[in-house]
Amino acid sequence: MARRLRGYFPLIGWLGRYNRRLFASDAVAAIIVTAMVIPQSLAFALLAGLPPQAGLYASILPAIAYTLFGTGNTLAIGPVALISLMSAAAVGEVAQAGSAGYISASITLALLSGVILFAMGLLRLGFLSNFISHPVISGFITASGLLIATSQLQHVLGVRISGDNLMALGLGLWRTITETHGPTLMIGLPALVFLYGVRHYLAAGLSRLSFDGRVTGIVVRAGPLIAVVIATAIVATLSLDQHGVSIVGNVPRGLPAFGVPGGSLALIEQLLLPALLISIVTFVESVSLAHKLAARRNERIRPDQELLGLGAANIASALSGGFAVAGGFSRSIINYDADAKTPAAGAMTGVFIGVITLFFSSVFYYLPNAVLAATIIIAVLTLVDLRAIRETWEYSRHDGAALVATLIITLFLGVTTGILTGVTLSLMLYLWRTSRPHSALVGRIAGTEHFRNIQRYETETSPYVMILRVDESLYFANARYLEDRVYTLIVEQPQLRDFVLMCPAVNYIDASALETLEAINGRLRDSGVRLHLSEVKGPVMDKLEKSRFLNALSGEVFMSTYHAWCKLKDRSRPPQPDDKQQMQTSSTPGQNV
Amino acid sequence: MARRLRGYFPLIGWLGRYNRRLFASDAVAAIIVTAMVIPQSLAFALLAGLPPQAGLYASILPAIAYTLFGTGNTLAIGPVALISLMSAAAVGEVAQAGSAGYISASITLALLSGVILFAMGLLRLGFLSNFISHPVISGFITASGLLIATSQLQHVLGVRISGDNLMALGLGLWRTITETHGPTLMIGLPALVFLYGVRHYLAAGLSRLSFDGRVTGIVVRAGPLIAVVIATAIVATLSLDQHGVSIVGNVPRGLPAFGVPGGSLALIEQLLLPALLISIVTFVESVSLAHKLAARRNERIRPDQELLGLGAANIASALSGGFAVAGGFSRSIINYDADAKTPAAGAMTGVFIGVITLFFSSVFYYLPNAVLAATIIIAVLTLVDLRAIRETWEYSRHDGAALVATLIITLFLGVTTGILTGVTLSLMLYLWRTSRPHSALVGRIAGTEHFRNIQRYETETSPYVMILRVDESLYFANARYLEDRVYTLIVEQPQLRDFVLMCPAVNYIDASALETLEAINGRLRDSGVRLHLSEVKGPVMDKLEKSRFLNALSGEVFMSTYHAWCKLKDRSRPPQPDDKQQMQTSSTPGQNV
Repeated sequence: MARRLRGYFPLIGWLGRYNRRLFASDAVAAIIVTAMVIPQSLAFALLAGLPPQAGLYASILPAIAYTLFGTGNTLAIGPVALISLMSAAAVGEVAQAGSAGYISASITLALLSGVILFAMGLLRLGFLSNFISHPVISGFITASGLLIATSQLQHVLGVRISGDNLMALGLGLWRTITETHGPTLMIGLPALVFLYGVRHYLAAGLSRLSFDGRVTGIVVRAGPLIAVVIATAIVATLSLDQHGVSIVGNVPRGLPAFGVPGGSLALIEQLLLPALLISIVTFVESVSLAHKLAARRNERIRPDQELLGLGAANIASALSGGFAVAGGFSRSIINYDADAKTPAAGAMTGVFIGVITLFFSSVFYYLPNAVLAATIIIAVLTLVDLRAIRETWEYSRHDGAALVATLIITLFLGVTTGILTGVTLSLMLYLWRTSRPHSALVGRIAGTEHFRNIQRYETETSPYVMILRVDESLYFANARYLEDRVYTLIVEQPQLRDFVLMCPAVNYIDASALETLEAINGRLRDSGVRLHLSEVKGPVMDKLEKSRFLNALSGEVFMSTYHAWCKLKDRSRPPQPDDKQQMQTSSTPGQNV
Repeated sequence: MARRLRGYFPLIGWLGRYNRRLFASDAVAAIIVTAMVIPQSLAFALLAGLPPQAGLYASILPAIAYTLFGTGNTLAIGPVALISLMSAAAVGEVAQAGSAGYISASITLALLSGVILFAMGLLRLGFLSNFISHPVISGFITASGLLIATSQLQHVLGVRISGDNLMALGLGLWRTITETHGPTLMIGLPALVFLYGVRHYLAAGLSRLSFDGRVTGIVVRAGPLIAVVIATAIVATLSLDQHGVSIVGNVPRGLPAFGVPGGSLALIEQLLLPALLISIVTFVESVSLAHKLAARRNERIRPDQELLGLGAANIASALSGGFAVAGGFSRSIINYDADAKTPAAGAMTGVFIGVITLFFSSVFYYLPNAVLAATIIIAVLTLVDLRAIRETWEYSRHDGAALVATLIITLFLGVTTGILTGVTLSLMLYLWRTSRPHSALVGRIAGTEHFRNIQRYETETSPYVMILRVDESLYFANARYLEDRVYTLIVEQPQLRDFVLMCPAVNYIDASALETLEAINGRLRDSGVRLHLSEVKGPVMDKLEKSRFLNALSGEVFMSTYHAWCKLKDRSRPPQPDDKQQMQTSSTPGQNV
């Protein structure tokens, strides 16, 4: 019982070993992360279409809640770009941007995602994420990065556009480009250039000066903080808000009101599918991030436990006026580089952000939205991975097609359609491939016991024996294909007496394929050809022995193809019902290379 | 061009060889089939909720249209039980039974199915049917048989019930059983007993008298015709229709009006999914029947061409006042037993039924519906295959579960939900299975070059080498599983230096699995363990050579596991970056059995 409790609450384990040294390390990391992620939290609230304080709220309790269940020592929880975009797209369908209904729908969405994630954790459904292939994730993330960057351009230009796909956003920019607001651009453009420079040149410069990689990482990631501080100072000094530059403005001081969000059944029904997709993306992204971070330190995470942690975080976010959260890439990397040791660092970050929200929220008043948008644009452009497209395509046409389809559909039909299409397509391509298995006629490599593809190697064959190797498990989708292949082959070799199906790569034979094998056996028997099997695996043989098939089989099951070859290669006499165990040596040698 | 035309119109081929002998054979078969299938055609119209003449219309032009494209020499086209039930279920959702709207919706449904089938044929989509597993088909057919038999009981009892699932039908019978109409039952019950006796005892009797199997087949299948003739005579003589026995009544004399069915877009939208499912079931059932009949005579059929034939038949049915048709089991068997030689037999059947419809439709006037229902009940009960359930379950739990789920859901939630659930479930079970592949640590069988599961065999192993055989292609759904397995294994063996992934059953490595292999390679390298591959197949190796993986691989790719074993088994020294090609012999032998 205690052990089970410990399984569900991993903090019981690490809290027992907690000491002053670990605390010092975690606290320093938490202070660094707090300073770095506040601009980001405000920015992602903007991206999700919410007032800035929502971003702070979503960074307090969720981080603490995750600590209760999470197994990732350095995973940091809060608003992230991808999920904020998905939230905006989903909520935009059911409520007017900027309305009270919009805020409450965002909260409801976070609650639904949290409940779904938590339930998946309790039901140990973490494996479901395995069914989303890397190319689909890659295409989805690249497309989302492009969508987010495009949508944020409006804040840098000081115009107003809307839309959840590249076509609408692009047209919007095209129409409003002439209305660009000078002062806003004067703030936003330098911020973009500065952030780009920091990210792309500073790191190289610092490492040339042989700084520690970790220090470099933290300095580079301080770019947004520096940009925000400077821009805030400029706007405040020059009172640029009086000249139409959009600023964050009043952030209500104090902690969020704690309460269960209301939500009609109709609203819940409308948000259920997006919530499910957000849950899956949250899980896939957070867990693969946690995996990578843990692997670097030779630690392990437990995916099902991560589901509980992420679920608790989202429920906590919904109860405290936040929105959908996940394990964030940049905040986790900062946490890792700042040497966080346990999940306590995350909880402390939550507490520190809470303190700032409680006492210092007025410092954000003059922060220009253009600079927040610039930090988002630079951050998400790192998600765009065009090289992956080329490499994936070159490695496999199927995987490349899944990636490009997900990318294009996400860009032009939105995130929900994009990821659903990608997942469906990748599963269909897999099924399609297994439905047309590779198979090869094999012959003996002279002087050996090896049998290889007669088209790739010089081999010995016999006019009386045909050996077909099937490189796939036999199941309903490829049973008919196998049947057609066998029937086509046997008419090409009229002297044929024995047909051997070589099964070293057959990991499973389902009921449909078994029926097909029975049909093939009958058809071959009618044509005077026996069916044999060779190299059948243990688990497959166990199953076959439970069926009637082996009784009906006109030939034998050979342990090795070589045994089959020795016994059958010279047998030209038509098989008789009673010579199953006999071996017949014909005068015709019947070998040809 | 001529060859291509010949491909699309196989009748160009056989018509060229057509002669008097073939004609005589086909004509005799057509006469026999015509006599046998007329009661059936009337009965299936009743089942589809349509007036009796629709069954005749659906047997005239469709049979002729199929002849233009079909490749099955003995496949006979017309109304069939399963499709009639599906048609009734679909149309019952959009129109009131017995209304003009009901008839026109049935016709629209046939047209849609025809267009879908024809389009699938042009696009060569016949392979799609491979994705429906035999257990799903088996469960669906058994459930449909039970549903049809239950629904037809009302006509035998002379009561009126409605519903498209077993619960509703059963309750209906329970409530109305006391209203059973005596005279109707007096006609229906003897018909049931007679037909059952003919089917189950006559065949045995005739073959004991050593009749030819073919003659037996035809005599047994004449049962319905005999029952219908006798019952009609009795009803007419005793004027039982005056005593409330329901009869076929007036069948309009003459051929159907030829015309394009109207149908609103809304209607088409509602019928599209059922039409798609009807198309798929039509195709699956007709093609597997045609396959079986052709195989008995060592003939071949072409599935994509069958799609064109079935599509043309359904379009023709819709244009001439019929309803959805398919290749019928009993009419095809009669056709086969009566020795039809070419598809011309089918066309002639169509012509003969046309002649009867034109001149003799009044003979059906006194035919009691109770007897038609009895012929349906006896026919569909042969579809119920309870033994298949047990056998499938014993062979494979997955297949058994798919069968039972399809059966139960079809029975209680209707045909559309049933088949969709079955197909989805069987695909999901397949994916689930491949996502948790069988894998085994293997060791050398002493004195041989064979490597087997260390849990099943006595094997040699080494503390420095671990060899894992994975019995499945590596793809996105099982990549994480493999990763977890490897990481769990390596911590158990601290002296480990070399890890060999044995790949004889790996038929494919997709982009996701490749990334995972890269991750495993990196993780193992960090732990001082090299990753090797052995027995990689040709096509898989071709792909790997196009990727960066082989450059990053810390170990080697061995042609045989034995080579890997010889080279690695005694190497205990931690691997150095530069000793990739060296072989190190440790003083510790390190073998244990």
